Amino acid sequence: MHQDKAPNSSSKAVESRTVIRLRREGETEETDDHLTVEEPLEIRVNGRRFTLTMRTPGHDELLARGLLFSEGLARDNDDFESIALSTRCRDDGSELVNVVDVTLHELNDVPAHSWERSLISNSSCGLCGKASIEALSTRVQALHDTTPIASRIIFSLPERMRARQSMFQMTGGLHAAAIFCASGECLALHEDIGRHNATDKVIGQGLQEAWLPTGDDDETLILLVSGRSSFEIVQKALVARIPIVCSVSAASSLAVDLSQANNQTLIGFLRPGTMTIYCHSHRII
Amino acid sequence: MHQDKAPNSSSKAVESRTVIRLRREGETEETDDHLTVEEPLEIRVNGRRFTLTMRTPGHDELLARGLLFSEGLARDNDDFESIALSTRCRDDGSELVNVVDVTLHELNDVPAHSWERSLISNSSCGLCGKASIEALSTRVQALHDTTPIASRIIFSLPERMRARQSMFQMTGGLHAAAIFCASGECLALHEDIGRHNATDKVIGQGLQEAWLPTGDDDETLILLVSGRSSFEIVQKALVARIPIVCSVSAASSLAVDLSQANNQTLIGFLRPGTMTIYCHSHRII
Repeated sequence: MHQDKAPNSSSKAVESRTVIRLRREGETEETDDHLTVEEPLEIRVNGRRFTLTMRTPGHDELLARGLLFSEGLARDNDDFESIALSTRCRDDGSELVNVVDVTLHELNDVPAHSWERSLISNSSCGLCGKASIEALSTRVQALHDTTPIASRIIFSLPERMRARQSMFQMTGGLHAAAIFCASGECLALHEDIGRHNATDKVIGQGLQEAWLPTGDDDETLILLVSGRSSFEIVQKALVARIPIVCSVSAASSLAVDLSQANNQTLIGFLRPGTMTIYCHSHRII
Repeated sequence: MHQDKAPNSSSKAVESRTVIRLRREGETEETDDHLTVEEPLEIRVNGRRFTLTMRTPGHDELLARGLLFSEGLARDNDDFESIALSTRCRDDGSELVNVVDVTLHELNDVPAHSWERSLISNSSCGLCGKASIEALSTRVQALHDTTPIASRIIFSLPERMRARQSMFQMTGGLHAAAIFCASGECLALHEDIGRHNATDKVIGQGLQEAWLPTGDDDETLILLVSGRSSFEIVQKALVARIPIVCSVSAASSLAVDLSQANNQTLIGFLRPGTMTIYCHSHRII
């Protein structure tokens, strides 16, 4: 229902190249291959450079929105005054977006070290996973209990995600993140060379469409990421108040600690036959 | 021959946790699972914070060495005066390394923006992949032609890497990077939650043991990474003068452009039966 149907017309996320395919038997074949595009993007906030990220072009305004929200610079969508893309022409005539200029109504009280894209305490004595979780707890509350979800819905998500990963089907080489509602309907899906960027884009979309962050009485949403769940992925989901985070591969120790401490359900190795529930299994029935 | 046999005694790279395994049929089982540890590490250079990275503990001095070399702060191993690890005790009595203090004999003329861990031009008009490649060319020369390698050696590498990925076998959830010599012997292998960290660790080891960066008459070395090849991976290999870069998954457009421009052989989708050679196939026979 909320699916974003309008990719940036200027984006060029896949490129074709001539490559050589070599088989073990020694047979070689020259063929055209689709590659995922990787390009740098600078995100500026109120005129100051916030970060530079390598990402797959497309939906850059959602990337900026989601990133600044999860890093705490914006508390909700109303904090954004404007998001402007700077584009320029490439040699082949297509447009390239390389700078996103974000204007926030006011700069929240962000510690200086957040400008290094890091939520982690700057003092070396507190520099460990436990301190990272404590630092986050100053601005993020633990989640409330939410309506449980049937495990069959959870098991169906990887297939639902794959069916919509149009770029992956072309290139075999990029990550995806998707947010689903309790019935298994996909609310947002984005693909990117970086798992974190894909997550920022889906969260940015939810923010823009005002179904994120969720309220305590909202239905239970589920974030699914390809690859692994790291601290940063879980943190982004937590700031967006997403109660269930799933990945098709493993979770790190720190990701589990962060979910555990905040009443978030964390699931890994979500495969056709089994899943691993790391914590707060009460949301899965 | 060069394999590092002495992991940090203080490192704790894998942790055991109790999880719930849920099968599609509804059967649940409480079991112990091994998780990859993720912890922040601060790298300081001559007293100033250079970066903060989330990594799997262990071989942190190699991580710092490899990273500072590939970012251009050190040109070779002699530029390092000292590398000191700050450790402290965790609740369970194990030691945690959270800061690496690096002293360089002199700080090379590093542009300010490199302190943001970015090689990419700071001017927005040059902010695109092409500019990134040009910026790198000011300090990195194209590779010379090197002795070709038999494709059967290349095909054998993923299995050789997997056989030594002891942590992956336990956790199923982390990346690896390995450097092989022309005969297929493994010179260095490291595992980490981040592909870039694993690459920094193997390059750091080669630097410490003085077989990196390679000279123009040295044998052809090969870097293999799990996952995908991005611009950053190719850049690290290029600075270390590694002529062949392989990954088991796809390469990005910018990774291919960078290899192409520097006479580096780039291979992707290295699977049992086939490989994709993106550029400079003259090194594979």
